[in-house]
Amino acid sequence: MPLVTNPILEQLTQHRSIREFEDQPLSPHQVTELVNAAQHASTSTFSQQYSIVSVTDPAKLHAIAEVTGHRWMVNGGHYFVMVADQYRNLKIAKAHGIDPHMLHSTDKFLASVFDTAIATENIMVAAEGMGLGGTIMGSVLNNPRKMIELLNLPEMTFPLLGIALGYPKDKPELKPRLPKASMHFENQYDLGANFDQELTDYDQLIREYYQSRSTNGRSETFSHHIVSELSGNRNLRSDLFAMIQAQGLMTH
Amino acid sequence: MPLVTNPILEQLTQHRSIREFEDQPLSPHQVTELVNAAQHASTSTFSQQYSIVSVTDPAKLHAIAEVTGHRWMVNGGHYFVMVADQYRNLKIAKAHGIDPHMLHSTDKFLASVFDTAIATENIMVAAEGMGLGGTIMGSVLNNPRKMIELLNLPEMTFPLLGIALGYPKDKPELKPRLPKASMHFENQYDLGANFDQELTDYDQLIREYYQSRSTNGRSETFSHHIVSELSGNRNLRSDLFAMIQAQGLMTH
Repeated sequence: MPLVTNPILEQLTQHRSIREFEDQPLSPHQVTELVNAAQHASTSTFSQQYSIVSVTDPAKLHAIAEVTGHRWMVNGGHYFVMVADQYRNLKIAKAHGIDPHMLHSTDKFLASVFDTAIATENIMVAAEGMGLGGTIMGSVLNNPRKMIELLNLPEMTFPLLGIALGYPKDKPELKPRLPKASMHFENQYDLGANFDQELTDYDQLIREYYQSRSTNGRSETFSHHIVSELSGNRNLRSDLFAMIQAQGLMTH
Repeated sequence: MPLVTNPILEQLTQHRSIREFEDQPLSPHQVTELVNAAQHASTSTFSQQYSIVSVTDPAKLHAIAEVTGHRWMVNGGHYFVMVADQYRNLKIAKAHGIDPHMLHSTDKFLASVFDTAIATENIMVAAEGMGLGGTIMGSVLNNPRKMIELLNLPEMTFPLLGIALGYPKDKPELKPRLPKASMHFENQYDLGANFDQELTDYDQLIREYYQSRSTNGRSETFSHHIVSELSGNRNLRSDLFAMIQAQGLMTH
């Protein structure tokens, strides 16, 4: 039986990050459709704890390209910043004279991170359904202070993810994912006795992927990639937790 | 121009949480398709920092129903627990003699939360594309200790979300979302001078939704909902942060 049996599964399993775009902006109608798709995703306890900032000002786009280190993003068709947001609900609590203690909790921060990430993925899926492509960018976290200042974000909000979208100009090869036996378990977590061998095989698969792909060819396995991720500058984002708390989030 | 113009947008904007299911389990093939869809979602720096546990053991399903307070979940066609996972990458770091310091960071924890939530939404979208429905359940966080014990989760992992799926037996009305002017901004966060009025109108819309819906009718506005969320037991999930750190995550 073929693994993929309908257009939606076909689309989801063909996702790749797109970083080169045609010189064509999204229409306001398209942007509204994407925000609408985001809004219809699940949110934790229906509390809608995120907001979306469309960045259209070229100076701000360039400043975000600086923060993220991804200069290609300024050539996209549209850029969203996805923001964890308890500010709106703080206003509601205050208007009703309710102590907002619980809004500052780790639980409520996590809920707003879920809401933001889930809405982000809906935008990506909706965009791909419209023939667009793009990249979700965690690199806005390189400098939250700068992002907060640029977008005038109030207390109880935090910029979590960027989404660069546009009409794709490239189509990178699909990167092979971890073997399912290493990430999908039944009833209990168990990497299994064959994990080392599976990882060795997967490392080889990733090496072949990088060697064979048409651009940015290199010799790197998945394990090398993880190791290099962990060998970087220890000061990178070391103030992230403090910054989140400075916004009033996850203070208990 | 109609807002929704293709089948994927149509599906995304028709999402509702389904809590009543036909008595029909998902096939192993369907489960594999859903895991496959999850795997093809974006992950932060391609580090694939999550795992999926399918819960099929009736005793464990009942125990999770107890944790979440959602007894209806045992009648679903399949249940996934989505787990933030740095354990696999910890094993890789150790095998290469690399200090895993950075894996314990807030940054890496957030990355694993993004990966988990994004994969979760892909499963929901894929499931709906297969004619299934379901509910994403943050309520596994009611008792992470119990979830960790039930699923034998190792250090550097954390259970974040459950997904109950099955063949829908009900079709709840679509709940109206916040007005876009209150959650989508351009270039800077700005609720605008009309926020209070927009909220009043939205509160009324939600009250009408609850009053008119066919089941569980009640009189509640969005503001009431937020206030009641914040007025609950202050001890609920108050050990969440400590539990995450006890797993070795977000310790700096």
